[in-house]
This record gives sequence, C-alpha cells and structure tokens, in this order.
Amino acid sequence: MPHINLPPRHSPGISGLLMYRPETAGPLRELVEILLLGPSSLTPGEREIIAASVSWWNDCHFCHTSHAAAACAHLGKPIAFIDEIKAGLPNEALSPKMRALLQVAHQVQLGGKHVTDADIAAARSAGATDVEIHDTVLIAASFCMFNRYVDGLATWAWPEKEKFMEIGGKMAHEGYMKPYVPENP
Amino acid sequence: MPHINLPPRHSPGISGLLMYRPETAGPLRELVEILLLGPSSLTPGEREIIAASVSWWNDCHFCHTSHAAAACAHLGKPIAFIDEIKAGLPNEALSPKMRALLQVAHQVQLGGKHVTDADIAAARSAGATDVEIHDTVLIAASFCMFNRYVDGLATWAWPEKEKFMEIGGKMAHEGYMKPYVPENP
Repeated sequence: MPHINLPPRHSPGISGLLMYRPETAGPLRELVEILLLGPSSLTPGEREIIAASVSWWNDCHFCHTSHAAAACAHLGKPIAFIDEIKAGLPNEALSPKMRALLQVAHQVQLGGKHVTDADIAAARSAGATDVEIHDTVLIAASFCMFNRYVDGLATWAWPEKEKFMEIGGKMAHEGYMKPYVPENP
Repeated sequence: MPHINLPPRHSPGISGLLMYRPETAGPLRELVEILLLGPSSLTPGEREIIAASVSWWNDCHFCHTSHAAAACAHLGKPIAFIDEIKAGLPNEALSPKMRALLQVAHQVQLGGKHVTDADIAAARSAGATDVEIHDTVLIAASFCMFNRYVDGLATWAWPEKEKFMEIGGKMAHEGYMKPYVPENP
C-alpha cells in the first residue's frame, strides 16, 4: 500500500505520483523526455538500457521493468531482454562505448565520487564525447531520483514483466509528457 | 578538474553544468524552484535544511554548503549553522514534525525501500500531511540526483564555507531560475 493516500485504482509506479502532484510532474516529465528521447548521439534504445540498468541496480522493479520494456520496443527485442539487462547484457553485441558508459552509470549509482578518471578515460578512448559522458551521468543520477521517488512512497506495480509491455511501448512511441492510465490494470 | 571540458572560469558546482547543457537545465531549475521555494506548508528554510542534510549524507560539499547557506539566509542563522546541519542540528529547536521528516529523508537517501511504515507513521503522528511526506521524499530523492550530477562530473567548489554565503543568499532571495556567476570567484 502506498505511503500516501492516492486515489483508488491509481496508475502504477511513478504514473500515480505524477497525477497526484502535477506541479512537480511538469519538470519531471520534461527532464526524462529530453534525457531519453531528445536529440542525442546515443539512441533512445541505448539511453533506455542505461535507465533500466540503473533502476535494476537500485532494486526498483517498476522503473527497471518499464524502461527495459521501452528498450525492447525501441530495439525490437523480445521480452527476455528485460531479464538480460539484469545480468548486464553479457550476450549482447553492445558497442565498447556503451559498455564503458554503463560502467560510468554504475559508478554514479553507487555515488558521484565513485566515478574515477580511469572510468572517464575508458569511455573517451571507446569514443564517448563530452556530451555523451554528461548525459550518461545525468541519466544515471536522475534514475537515482526516480527510483527513490517510486519506492520511497511504496507505489504499486505488477509483479509480472508481461504486464509492462504495454507501458514500455507507450513510453517508446508516445514519450513521457502524457499521463499514463493502463489499458488493462 | 571536471570530467568534461567546461569553459575556463566556469561557475562552481551545478551552476557550470547548467550553463553547459541548457536543454536539461530548464527542467532541473524548475524542479528545484518548485520543491524548495514553491507554495508549501513547509517553510523554504525547512526545505533547505532537508536539501542540505541529504547532500551532506551524500558527501556532496557543493550542494551541502550552498543549500545550508541558503537555509542560513532564510532563517537568519549564523554561518556556524552550516556545520550544525552536518551534526543533525542536535541543539536546534526543530519541530517534532521536522525531525520525523528528516528521518524519512535520511531513509530515502539510503534507498527508496529503506522508508518503513513506522517512519511514515511517526511523521504522520507528528503532524505531517500527505503532501509534506510526498514533498520530503521527492526533495530527498532529487538531491540524490543533484549530488551525483555535481560529483559524478567532478565539478569544482570553494573549500571554505565563507565563500558560499553569497550564493546561499542569492538562492534564498532570487531563486533558482537564473544562471549563477560568482561575484568574487
């Protein structure tokens, strides 16, 4: 049960919170829209993998599964990809740049000061630009916020990953600016 | 030295990053403006104490010291208040509600799932409303982002707290929407 009184049959995860407090929902929606879907030399699928991975490291089921499902929608991956993100995508043909940026993101998740000069040098030598490093740090940092927001207020989410394919598709194809109401709650 | 190439003589902490990437600066500025200075039954001074405390627990010198200095400006406190926030304000006449909300914020800093029903019940029985609990969780969560953004990119800050009184005053009296350039860098 959520820690605050949300309306009966409210939307899962952050969706219910964004409807509860529209004042803060505005900048939160805009931030994630720009970071994950705005103009960037990282593809939306790559950025959703970073978001989903950080959420998994933060043990946030709603954010991990929904952003992993969005990555599936962007990349044309089967539902098993959601669990492969948990394992660090060992069998995926990720670019060396993406591997190095995921390492930077993992350090950010542990804490800002965990990011070392060596982590940054590795990303740079794998071809990452300054803006890509900046955006990876901010995506990882912002999911340290979103994950705590979602779990700190004990919002609900479906246990089964199958239920997340609809929201993941909407996130990928319609973006983050509109309220989400599940078709089959 | 910052992990990305910021211009020579750039502003300290997050200020330089907000100028570097104006696309993401917009929603980040708006979020902190609403959370710390928008309409609320928590005073701006109380909200700055929460922001500064979370930043201290995250070991983020720039965010802790600047937001503690903003709290000084709001509350008419001397500069020693910056260090008292580090100690948990043991000698301050904080309301039981503020003590309970700081405990909720501390749990959020550790991770969303650390917030217990007992933490929430204690806040509620000290008089906290649902919106106050919501906002405390989101302030704490958002500083887990801001702190990681500032330190994850290794931005610079003055070592001495005296240098922060100017930025703290500007944050308190002019808000968060404008770029910050130090008067005496």
